[in-house]
Amino acid sequence: MRRLRSPTEEGTTLTLQVVEYACDGVQLTGHLALPAGGGDLPAVLVAHEASGMNDNIQSRTLALAERGYAAFALDMYGVDGVSPAESNELVTRLMETPGLLVNRAKAALAALAALPSVDPSRMGAIGFCLGGVVALELARVGSPIKCAVGFHPGYVRPRGSPGDPISAKVLMMSGSADPFATEDLRAQFAAEMTSKDADWQLHLFGGVGHTFTDPAIDALELPGFGYDADADRRSWAMMLALLEECLGSPQ
Amino acid sequence: MRRLRSPTEEGTTLTLQVVEYACDGVQLTGHLALPAGGGDLPAVLVAHEASGMNDNIQSRTLALAERGYAAFALDMYGVDGVSPAESNELVTRLMETPGLLVNRAKAALAALAALPSVDPSRMGAIGFCLGGVVALELARVGSPIKCAVGFHPGYVRPRGSPGDPISAKVLMMSGSADPFATEDLRAQFAAEMTSKDADWQLHLFGGVGHTFTDPAIDALELPGFGYDADADRRSWAMMLALLEECLGSPQ
Repeated sequence: MRRLRSPTEEGTTLTLQVVEYACDGVQLTGHLALPAGGGDLPAVLVAHEASGMNDNIQSRTLALAERGYAAFALDMYGVDGVSPAESNELVTRLMETPGLLVNRAKAALAALAALPSVDPSRMGAIGFCLGGVVALELARVGSPIKCAVGFHPGYVRPRGSPGDPISAKVLMMSGSADPFATEDLRAQFAAEMTSKDADWQLHLFGGVGHTFTDPAIDALELPGFGYDADADRRSWAMMLALLEECLGSPQ
Repeated sequence: MRRLRSPTEEGTTLTLQVVEYACDGVQLTGHLALPAGGGDLPAVLVAHEASGMNDNIQSRTLALAERGYAAFALDMYGVDGVSPAESNELVTRLMETPGLLVNRAKAALAALAALPSVDPSRMGAIGFCLGGVVALELARVGSPIKCAVGFHPGYVRPRGSPGDPISAKVLMMSGSADPFATEDLRAQFAAEMTSKDADWQLHLFGGVGHTFTDPAIDALELPGFGYDADADRRSWAMMLALLEECLGSPQ
């Protein structure tokens, strides 16, 4: 897994830290970004997409720390620098092995909660693509997160996905042209959330495809994928508003 | 039509003004609220729900003026203090008479644009319930609005609704339990917006009913209707963000 870059903006002084943790014998490597000053911080778990840690996840993690959150980019794989073929295999294992995905997510959340600078009563989870599933599963299993936010998330549930009531506030944001967010899948999600009496929101960006937050996606020329600057900016603002609603003002 | 109340908050100094205007021989009465200072203001047309001008529309109009917008509560009826039975009849006429709804909306927008304190290049339209249809029709007919925002809007199109391309940015926000925002109606809306290549967004508040912005609705005990404080607060914030994106900072 690549390391977080040091912040390049002048005047920002973030603390970056590699946090090793484990889940069922697998060594995982998270990357923590802390704002200047430290203290009893509200904290955000950042769950990467299928491709693993990349520039986009790095910059989101830094941006959250710049807003005053303890931001922790988790590691779902325990493998450094995965190829697309490897990531497909890793995702399939996480989705098909009951408990595997949610246990890795819980291990990351526990590592975050144990940090001395973190207020464990003010934690949220966000995620991109596969990471949206990670954030949702943490909500489904009753983890102590106040909110779960997904950017172009998957809506298919991992095998063995729990049926508990959901207390975390859920916000999923998808493009209407995202092949992983069909009307059927969105309707299934809505029915599940409603049956669990969750506080949920689903936002649709018209004509937008999958991975709309990542400028690097366009180079791959994948059908149904595409960066969208408006959806990127608007979805980030909606996430910040929900974080502030759920975790309080960061500083 | 009832008059706008004077603002009660200390320190706010808004100018309130009744603006008479006409459409095809029908006299209409709008209510304008201006922030202190005046000038070349960004402006927001506020379209009432089926019940006509009410406390909720009044307070929204004042709130927009307090944010720095010239806010103009239009009049779709030309009738003062309508009963529920009368409003049903008025809505039916507006929806069934080709051109009637959009012409009244255009007359209101023209009255707003002609005001000396308004910058006609920075106008948006918002609306509640029927008013959401009004804002959408202004977008559909190519009016010079930068954005159209609907709170628990209707998705049925008025007879003769135009098929032009849409340049205004469209944001509709509905409750998932709103009987006027069924999956079918939302899918029709999405298909229409996509076919017109609009910049559109559709936000769903889980488990929320119709008229979620109006605390007074609960007293009527209508099935499928209901106030929701979270959806109210969040939808207002999303509207403010889009107004700022489209019209620039108000002051």
